[in-house]
Amino acid sequence: MPVAVSSPLLFTPSPAPQTRKSRSLLPSQTLTLRRPATFSARPRLAIPFSIRAAVAIEKEIPENERPETFLRAADDSAAAAPTSVRGRFERMIREAQDEVCAAIEAVDGGGKFKEDVWSRPGGGGGISRVLQDGGVWEKAGVNVSVVYGVMPPEAYRAAKGESGAGGDDSSVKAGPVPFFAAGISSVLHPKNPFAPTLHFNYRYFETDAPKDAPGAPRQWWFGGGTDLTPAYIFEEDVKHFHTIQKQACDQFDSSFYPRFKKWCDDYFFIKHRGERRGLGGIFFDDLNDCDQEMLLAFSTECAKSVVPAYIPIIERRKDVPFTEQHKAWQQLRRGRYVEFNLVYDRGTTFGLKTGGRIESILVSLPLTARWEYDHQPEEGSEEWKLLDACINPKEWL
Amino acid sequence: MPVAVSSPLLFTPSPAPQTRKSRSLLPSQTLTLRRPATFSARPRLAIPFSIRAAVAIEKEIPENERPETFLRAADDSAAAAPTSVRGRFERMIREAQDEVCAAIEAVDGGGKFKEDVWSRPGGGGGISRVLQDGGVWEKAGVNVSVVYGVMPPEAYRAAKGESGAGGDDSSVKAGPVPFFAAGISSVLHPKNPFAPTLHFNYRYFETDAPKDAPGAPRQWWFGGGTDLTPAYIFEEDVKHFHTIQKQACDQFDSSFYPRFKKWCDDYFFIKHRGERRGLGGIFFDDLNDCDQEMLLAFSTECAKSVVPAYIPIIERRKDVPFTEQHKAWQQLRRGRYVEFNLVYDRGTTFGLKTGGRIESILVSLPLTARWEYDHQPEEGSEEWKLLDACINPKEWL
Repeated sequence: MPVAVSSPLLFTPSPAPQTRKSRSLLPSQTLTLRRPATFSARPRLAIPFSIRAAVAIEKEIPENERPETFLRAADDSAAAAPTSVRGRFERMIREAQDEVCAAIEAVDGGGKFKEDVWSRPGGGGGISRVLQDGGVWEKAGVNVSVVYGVMPPEAYRAAKGESGAGGDDSSVKAGPVPFFAAGISSVLHPKNPFAPTLHFNYRYFETDAPKDAPGAPRQWWFGGGTDLTPAYIFEEDVKHFHTIQKQACDQFDSSFYPRFKKWCDDYFFIKHRGERRGLGGIFFDDLNDCDQEMLLAFSTECAKSVVPAYIPIIERRKDVPFTEQHKAWQQLRRGRYVEFNLVYDRGTTFGLKTGGRIESILVSLPLTARWEYDHQPEEGSEEWKLLDACINPKEWL
Repeated sequence: MPVAVSSPLLFTPSPAPQTRKSRSLLPSQTLTLRRPATFSARPRLAIPFSIRAAVAIEKEIPENERPETFLRAADDSAAAAPTSVRGRFERMIREAQDEVCAAIEAVDGGGKFKEDVWSRPGGGGGISRVLQDGGVWEKAGVNVSVVYGVMPPEAYRAAKGESGAGGDDSSVKAGPVPFFAAGISSVLHPKNPFAPTLHFNYRYFETDAPKDAPGAPRQWWFGGGTDLTPAYIFEEDVKHFHTIQKQACDQFDSSFYPRFKKWCDDYFFIKHRGERRGLGGIFFDDLNDCDQEMLLAFSTECAKSVVPAYIPIIERRKDVPFTEQHKAWQQLRRGRYVEFNLVYDRGTTFGLKTGGRIESILVSLPLTARWEYDHQPEEGSEEWKLLDACINPKEWL
C-alpha cells in the first residue's frame, strides 16, 4: 500500500517566547498545491478537485527500499556531503528512528512496526513506521522525512535578521528561496491508563545560499522537544522524565532546561480549556542563536534521551491493573490530545491546510478518545490532581 | 452545577455559495473577552488569565428555572413583543427543543435529559439539555439560546447591502451595531452503528435599528439546516430523510431543496480528507432574500420536520445486531465527525476562539471516536460504499 510520511510532520513551530523572528516562515508561503484526483484503495473522486494552499508539496511516490540518503545528489557538493549538517542530521534522525522503534518493539512484545518508504520527484522523502494495537501500545508512530521546498522572499527576510546565522538584508534580492528540512516526529500512545503518552520531534531547517545574491548567507534553525502526557501522575515518573531532559540540556547550556521547559508549557496549551495537554518536558523552535555544531549535538543528545527518559516509565506501568474508570479518564485525556492537535498544533494545522499526507499527519491522534459532557473530577482525586497540574504547570525538579 | 449553552452554538455560518454578503459578520468583531479566572468544581488557576478574542461574550449565570422568555423587556416594545419575529422565533425553538427531547426520551427508553438553564446580565440566556449514555443514544445534546451582542460597523455595512432587507449605506453612521441572535442547535449520536447521527441547527439574527441613524433599517437573517451522518447506508433511510427535507422546502420554494442540499454538501466538507462528514440534508445561511414571514415559517417547518425525518430511522435501526467490526467503523466515522467539527465548523471554531462555554460548544463531539492508521475499506464493501457517498455526494431523490 503506498504510504508516505508527510513533510508537515516535521514542523511543529511554536509561538516562540524568545526567538520570534522566523515565525512567519511557514504560514506565509503562497504557492498552489496540486492534490491528486484519486486515492489508492479508496473510492475514486468523480470530479477532480484541487485545494489551494500556502505551500507546494509534491505528491510522494512509494519506494520498496530505504535509500542510503534522501539528500539530493544534484545539490552543491558541500550541502549534499555526508559530512554536511544536513547529512549528519539526516543520519542522526534515522538512527534515532531505528533505536526508538527497536526499544518499543522489545518492550511491546507482540506489536511490530509497519514501514512505508517514499520519495518525492524533486528530492527528499521519508520513512514512516507505525505499530498499531500492540501488546503495550495502542498506536505508536515514528516518522522521519526530508523535504526540499521553496519559500517566498518575505519569509526568508523575516527569518534572517538580527541573530546568529543572519547576514545583512541588502544582500538578498527578492525571489523565492529554496529550503531544506529534515526531522523525526513521533507519538506513542500506550494502552494502560497508568502508562503515559510520549511525543517527540526534532527538526533541522536550512535555506540554500541564494544564487542571485552572492555572499548572502545560508540560514539554518533547529527545533524540537520531548514531552510527556500521562493520565495519572506518578511523581517518580515525571521527575525521572524531566531529570533526563535536564541532563540532556545541561550538557550544553544551563539556561536550556528552564527556558525550554517553560516554552513547552506555553506551547502545549489548550486555550479553550485553560489547560495544557500534559505535563510538559522541553520544547524549542527556530533556534539559531548558538553555535550550529553545538545545536546539532544538542538535538542528537535530546533524541538519544528519548529511550532512557521513557522506556523505564513504561516498564513500570505497562502491567499495572486498572479499572474501567481509569480507562475512561485516560480516554477523556486522549480527547484533549485530539483537541490540541487538531485545533492548535502548528505542524498539524499546517499539514492539513497544505495537503500533506493526511494519514501521516494524523498518526499522532490516539486510536480512541472520549468526550463526556461537563465531566468534572472530584476535588482531591487522582484525576483532579492531573488536571490541576495541566492547569498550573509545576516545577518537577 | 452551573452550566450554560454558549452563544457560538447558534452560529454555523457557512461559505455561502449564493449569499456571500454577510459572511464577515462574526469573524470581524473586535472586542475583548473577559474569561473568568476560576472554574467551578475543577482545579483553580493559580494566575488569572485572559483570552483576547473577536467578540465580547458576557459570563453566563446559572438559573434555577426556565424564564418565560429570554428577550429583554427593556428593548423597544416592537422588538420585544411576543408577536415580534424575535419573540416568535424564540417560542418556536423552545417548542422544538421540547418536542425533540420528548421524542428522544420516548424512543431511548432509559436515558433522561439533564437540563441547565442560564442567563447573561445584559440579557439573553439559554437552556442546554444533554442525554448521555442512554439506551439508544450515547450522547444527545439539544440546546437553545438567545444572545444580545454588538458588532462593529464594518460588519454591519458588509451585512447590509444589495438584497432583501437592506437599506442604503449613506443612512448609517459609523458606530457599533447591537445585534440579537437566537437559535436551536442539536447533535444526536446513537450507539448502534446502523443508527445514524443527526445534526440540526436553526437560527435567527437581527440587528437593532441604529439609534444614531434615523431611518436606517433593522437587518435580519435566517440560517440553519438538518443533516444525516450514518456509518452505513440504508438507502431507504437516506431517501426517507431527504424526502422529508424536500417536502419541508417545497412548501415554500421549489428552488430551496436543490439549493440547500448542495449547500449542505459543500459546507460539511472535510477538506483534508476530500470527503463529507456524512450524507447531507439541507443547509442555508445568511438568508434574507425572501419574505421574512415566509422564512420564519420555513425555519419552523424545518424544525418541525426533525422528528418525522429522524425518529422512524432510529426505530428501524436501534436494535439491529452488529459486530465489533461494525462498531469500529462507526467509531472511525465519529473520528471524522470530530475532525470536521474541530477543524472546519465555523460555529465550533468561532466558539473556541471567543471563549464561549466549552462544554456546550463541544457537546457536539461524540462520546467516543477512533483513528486507525491508514484504514482503507475493502473495495465494494458496505464501508467503502459509505465512504464513496461521502466523497461523491449523491442525489438521493
